[in-house]
Amino acid sequence: MSNRVAIIGVGMCKFGELWDQNLKDFTLEAGMYAIFDAGVPGSDIDGMVIGNMSAGRFTNQEHLGALAVDMGGLGDIPAYSVEAACASGGAAVRQAYMAIKSGEHNVMLVLGSEKMSDVNQTEAMNTISVASDWEWEGMFGATFPALYAFMARRHMYEYGTTEEHLALPTVKNHANAAHNPWAQFQSPVPIDVVMKSGMLADPLRVLHSAPVTDGAAGLVMCSEELAKKYTDTPVFIEASDQRSDTLALHDRKSITTMNAVVSSTKGALMEANLELKDIDVFELHDSFSIGEIILTEDVGIAKKGEGGKALEEGITEIGGKFPVNTSGGLKARGHPVGATGVAQIVELALQLRGDAEKRQVDGAEKALAVNIGGTGATSIVHVLRR
Amino acid sequence: MSNRVAIIGVGMCKFGELWDQNLKDFTLEAGMYAIFDAGVPGSDIDGMVIGNMSAGRFTNQEHLGALAVDMGGLGDIPAYSVEAACASGGAAVRQAYMAIKSGEHNVMLVLGSEKMSDVNQTEAMNTISVASDWEWEGMFGATFPALYAFMARRHMYEYGTTEEHLALPTVKNHANAAHNPWAQFQSPVPIDVVMKSGMLADPLRVLHSAPVTDGAAGLVMCSEELAKKYTDTPVFIEASDQRSDTLALHDRKSITTMNAVVSSTKGALMEANLELKDIDVFELHDSFSIGEIILTEDVGIAKKGEGGKALEEGITEIGGKFPVNTSGGLKARGHPVGATGVAQIVELALQLRGDAEKRQVDGAEKALAVNIGGTGATSIVHVLRR
Repeated sequence: MSNRVAIIGVGMCKFGELWDQNLKDFTLEAGMYAIFDAGVPGSDIDGMVIGNMSAGRFTNQEHLGALAVDMGGLGDIPAYSVEAACASGGAAVRQAYMAIKSGEHNVMLVLGSEKMSDVNQTEAMNTISVASDWEWEGMFGATFPALYAFMARRHMYEYGTTEEHLALPTVKNHANAAHNPWAQFQSPVPIDVVMKSGMLADPLRVLHSAPVTDGAAGLVMCSEELAKKYTDTPVFIEASDQRSDTLALHDRKSITTMNAVVSSTKGALMEANLELKDIDVFELHDSFSIGEIILTEDVGIAKKGEGGKALEEGITEIGGKFPVNTSGGLKARGHPVGATGVAQIVELALQLRGDAEKRQVDGAEKALAVNIGGTGATSIVHVLRR
Repeated sequence: MSNRVAIIGVGMCKFGELWDQNLKDFTLEAGMYAIFDAGVPGSDIDGMVIGNMSAGRFTNQEHLGALAVDMGGLGDIPAYSVEAACASGGAAVRQAYMAIKSGEHNVMLVLGSEKMSDVNQTEAMNTISVASDWEWEGMFGATFPALYAFMARRHMYEYGTTEEHLALPTVKNHANAAHNPWAQFQSPVPIDVVMKSGMLADPLRVLHSAPVTDGAAGLVMCSEELAKKYTDTPVFIEASDQRSDTLALHDRKSITTMNAVVSSTKGALMEANLELKDIDVFELHDSFSIGEIILTEDVGIAKKGEGGKALEEGITEIGGKFPVNTSGGLKARGHPVGATGVAQIVELALQLRGDAEKRQVDGAEKALAVNIGGTGATSIVHVLRR
């Protein structure tokens, strides 16, 4: 296990609609926070990767790799941007993981960032839609709320999932976010408010959907050997797995399961030599509440069709057997698309270090994150261990 | 040297304004060509990376990684997109290089692609401008022709570079492209035509500038050990180096040299244990003719200020001491931004295999590519050896 990769620093800005900050401001904030947390001199950092989906459309700025190095005063180190739709952040983590394992880099800064609020809601929706198969889905008006609504309706039909079930991830995640100082929404939401919120795409409502968010998250990663030099509380990446599926929903055999999630979770657990029951805390990609229900099933916490029931039984609450989205998830922490996959790892690293304060899962030692792109065309899974 | 990475297959589509094809069509063509050239069963390919700058703006389609896997029928392999402005293609090559060295992947498909002609010229120019420091440059109308014009004017002032010198890269590169069946422009251009072409941004003219191009290029890469199984003519990546500089020109001490190019070239040659004089053939990023002149100096072919003179003396022609842009370069092969860095490596691999036909550099054994982003904020250098 001598070539494991360690996370030695984590940071974020407070997510939200950050009207008074631009992409540069809060990306710098998250990166500096991670570097300070790691206690690493800037001169030791020899590479940078940033997860971002659409800064070219949202803010007229690409070339974020060199820009972030420039802003951060990190010299002339290599830097680039990676994109895999809403899984861009997870892709950045995986790229740094491989870059360090390859020996080409020793200490890397990993960022995820997105500024979504500088355009109007219609353009934000259109920009997100380019993560779907544009010529078969987006161009015909099949936005992501619509695509996930197909999945939700079919899940209700096949398994008897109810409107109450659809509301439960929101209720749980808002309750968790109330204890997360970085979350966009830090207030609980009662189930009846969720169930009466405006309809987006039947049966999905506004409060079943992740919000438009600005924000950034950062990690400092290095080899296991180097980690000893910098910290007494390293968190290790035990496994990294990624799989793909068709972009278009209509090309899949089933739209109530995400094959790429099933296979990447199995692959990552096998690589980590662990079983699902060994995992103490999860971050599962809940861009829509039906997404959390399907992922709860696809990673194996619940049997297929019983994700809603698992939520009903409290299994995925903090204090339950398999706590999911202690951070508040995409729904309540917020979902700046390129930042989300990095923010998931920030939360899990805090949990494994015992630094998650009022949302701490007692004695958490092993954690698993699922970051997906689109309706599951990309799935990236990381298993962490303290 | 047992963990070198090999290039075992190359492919491209013919570059041009491909009105009858969309991004999917020609990306698939380039990828399939590379896979056929490698003679690798699709099922052996276990990862994919694609260099692309702005498909979200140019064609309303992001998430190109999963999309390319989907189109290519490559199963559920991991895939993602990397972006470093016009160096996105080089960044994709470097990512695959690290992924293979890390042991996470065995055989990877590397693509670079851009579809630029689906938007009007103004929007194309604006989209490219997001690779500059938008808040300091692009927003105020400092397009790339304008930024490179600053560099050209200053180079003329400091070193006596002439308008004739500025025309020479175009004349040479069009002559080379006449022998490249994949090039956008396959006809020679006389110097007086270049010097009388329309003014873009004084002193830079239309024929000093790379065109708007659609196109894709592909590589199949694997470890040195595996390469033996597939081919008798592998080309090895001896070194990969990348450096960053400020995005904005005004933050640099000099605008007639690109520090990131100087340091990444030195770094790559040192890693390859070679000197510049050992290199037989070069691809240098010539988005504008002044760029080729500056890069000719910054890699060390000519002394600072004497890049124009080196062109005048024919040193960088095929048959000269240091042939540059045998493919026709960005000017004449065409410059689909995300594809360029991959296309450079395709050309050099063909040269080292002895497959470059009428543009072959006799006995070429070692090659060097410089792929830059913006005005040199990113520089990625690869050294290849047969």
